Amino acid sequence: MKRPSEERGSAERSSANVRPVSFEIEKKLPDSLARAGVLKTPHGDIQTPAFIAVATKATTKGLGSFMYPQMGVQAVIANAYHLYLMPGEKIVEHAGGVGKFMSWDGPTMTDSGGFQVFSLGEGFGKKVSKVLITEEPREPAIAVWDDDIATSHGKLAVVDDEGVTFTSHANGSLHRFTPERSMEIQHALGADIIFAFDECTSPAADHVYQKEAMERTHSWAKRSLEAHRRIEYENLKASLPFEVPQGRRRGIYGIVQGGRFEDLRLESARTLAEMDFDGYGIGGSFSKEDILGILEKVNRELPEEKPRHLLGIGEPEDLFIGVAAGIDTFDCVLPTRNGRNGTVYTFSGKTSIELAEFSEDLRPIDPDCDCFVCKQYSRSYIRHLFKSGEMLAGVLASAHNMRFLTRLTENIRQSILDGNFEEYRNEFLARYQK
Amino acid sequence: MKRPSEERGSAERSSANVRPVSFEIEKKLPDSLARAGVLKTPHGDIQTPAFIAVATKATTKGLGSFMYPQMGVQAVIANAYHLYLMPGEKIVEHAGGVGKFMSWDGPTMTDSGGFQVFSLGEGFGKKVSKVLITEEPREPAIAVWDDDIATSHGKLAVVDDEGVTFTSHANGSLHRFTPERSMEIQHALGADIIFAFDECTSPAADHVYQKEAMERTHSWAKRSLEAHRRIEYENLKASLPFEVPQGRRRGIYGIVQGGRFEDLRLESARTLAEMDFDGYGIGGSFSKEDILGILEKVNRELPEEKPRHLLGIGEPEDLFIGVAAGIDTFDCVLPTRNGRNGTVYTFSGKTSIELAEFSEDLRPIDPDCDCFVCKQYSRSYIRHLFKSGEMLAGVLASAHNMRFLTRLTENIRQSILDGNFEEYRNEFLARYQK
Repeated sequence: MKRPSEERGSAERSSANVRPVSFEIEKKLPDSLARAGVLKTPHGDIQTPAFIAVATKATTKGLGSFMYPQMGVQAVIANAYHLYLMPGEKIVEHAGGVGKFMSWDGPTMTDSGGFQVFSLGEGFGKKVSKVLITEEPREPAIAVWDDDIATSHGKLAVVDDEGVTFTSHANGSLHRFTPERSMEIQHALGADIIFAFDECTSPAADHVYQKEAMERTHSWAKRSLEAHRRIEYENLKASLPFEVPQGRRRGIYGIVQGGRFEDLRLESARTLAEMDFDGYGIGGSFSKEDILGILEKVNRELPEEKPRHLLGIGEPEDLFIGVAAGIDTFDCVLPTRNGRNGTVYTFSGKTSIELAEFSEDLRPIDPDCDCFVCKQYSRSYIRHLFKSGEMLAGVLASAHNMRFLTRLTENIRQSILDGNFEEYRNEFLARYQK
Repeated sequence: MKRPSEERGSAERSSANVRPVSFEIEKKLPDSLARAGVLKTPHGDIQTPAFIAVATKATTKGLGSFMYPQMGVQAVIANAYHLYLMPGEKIVEHAGGVGKFMSWDGPTMTDSGGFQVFSLGEGFGKKVSKVLITEEPREPAIAVWDDDIATSHGKLAVVDDEGVTFTSHANGSLHRFTPERSMEIQHALGADIIFAFDECTSPAADHVYQKEAMERTHSWAKRSLEAHRRIEYENLKASLPFEVPQGRRRGIYGIVQGGRFEDLRLESARTLAEMDFDGYGIGGSFSKEDILGILEKVNRELPEEKPRHLLGIGEPEDLFIGVAAGIDTFDCVLPTRNGRNGTVYTFSGKTSIELAEFSEDLRPIDPDCDCFVCKQYSRSYIRHLFKSGEMLAGVLASAHNMRFLTRLTENIRQSILDGNFEEYRNEFLARYQK
């Protein structure tokens, strides 16, 4: 493998022959929206359905990209909000984009950061209820903050129709995101698939506010798409010695919003479906109950030929619901968060590896698992590492959990190709204790 | 690789054909005690001089055994005190010994735990000055503790001529080690090379106390050796259907003590040299200034044909001093402790990877390094991981540091074989800023 320094300067944008993002459906099932496909990106293909590894700050927590090949990771999703704040998008761009920065050659995505602006700003649900809604774009919100808000320094996000002004969760410094700025940042981060900038509402928001926020999100989606196309075109023009047609390179996904209201979710899907996104994210929820029940209806409004990503949801039982409802890719922090806490996935359910019953148990975490952790390490050993407070504990449990979910999606994909998804789902869920 | 459960029950002691520990010197230098050799153990050879990875609780901090092959690790040293307290030596024995427990097929050592009994008991230097010295073995020390000591629960170690009574650093529970008990524990842990049980004195101890402690250590060394031979013999008899000669299998090292007093160190070396150990550890120091200056004199008292291990010392500059003084193997927690703190080794010296100057630096930590970290990751990325508080930061820096030290000892070994150790030392030290 080349040393990073040798690859310096080989920025994405200078490559004229990168492949555009596209999606091919290989097989559809007759009795549900489940499908198997291939999502093609400039950095390789993703066999879908797929579980995408979360790499918020350009690393999956506890896991290095050097372990990905052993865990069946096909692609990662990083976060524009976090990488903008630290180390800054310019540093990631200088490294050749988020993939090169973290030494991952495969496909990459970045979430736009809308969710994090609101959830980590923690104004969410409280301060944002004092939202400033205007007919016309106005001065940056800082100019109109009242004292009450301004003094709650470090913990707020204020939205206007132009964008969001927020303070960093890390140090309280003041920042502003607009759809255009989010696209600039995401292009600098250089992922293969980027997401439109959206407003994430509180689960407590009423229908009136949720509708306003959704409409703002649609306006932002249009602006995100336009900004994306403009940046792509300018980059191509700047880097190529000949005229190029306005072509796609990296892909952009729109994000369906609407909170817990079915009418809004469907309206959001219909509105975004008319825009020429390369795929769709479904998110903005802080509770999966908001969306899982109406997911199939939402997906029926989206163009069938475009890929769909379910943001932030990916427990084993959710994968089956999502796939049946037409989702192609998932991401979720739970495999690594659970791993760090000693909770491990097995085909018979989740369990704490710290239970006394595992103290002398020489079996691997899951006898059915093919991961490198289960090939080498026993329950007894991993329990000991947790009891001893060793870093390796979280590393091994997270690695196993990640492989569990990538393997589960591989199995699901195979069951679709084989035409027995329903049977596989029933078989899995009969055994798996939540 | 086999799953752990498949290897269940293949305990070390049942193997009649394990190789005994032995040492072969390949090359000696004329102008110093430096030598290159091969230390042969039941689980493979160690090319010396070698840096042994510390795996106190059956893991190198932040690093899994699955990474060892990529870091040039030849052998590990675990700790009997820690593994006795957690998970307990019986659990490790049940797993097939510390190597199998941690999924490491190569050579293993265990330190006897004397150092930890005293340093983690923290009675060391204070409570132990109230040491109870008797002519005859007496009742366990608990019986004669005075109230002052007994009420300082959780923080003491009390020595008598029979052994040491101490409280666990983890939970204050009461325990007792004797040379015989330490041998039982270490045999259960099943390492290839074990260490005699010794008393570690305070650096502040005066000559009178130090001499007493040394003599006690010599008595314990003799008892350790006898207990080791008896256990080996009983194990062999029990597991073999025929009479066997009293043969060595795993090796036992005696530990040279004597604190900072040259006359005691030399007396200790001479005394232990007369006992039939398979090798010698030089340790018991809490400060390397105690030992480095008189190391060559100590080693000249030890049998030339036996391997020598310098316990707990292994900074780059120390390796050259140690090797020139006749040391064959080293161990030290600093590569991983420094790594977790963001201090990395390079051939031009140690540096903090968190310095602002590295924020956009796309070079690897050390351009001369062949480790997997330097092959893949940039200073900019690793700095970002530290600044972001990501677990992977410590993992990558520790892995690089470990490889730095294993590679340095490989280079030193090669320079001895090539007859240019002095030149290599001068060249390295001229470049390396401490």
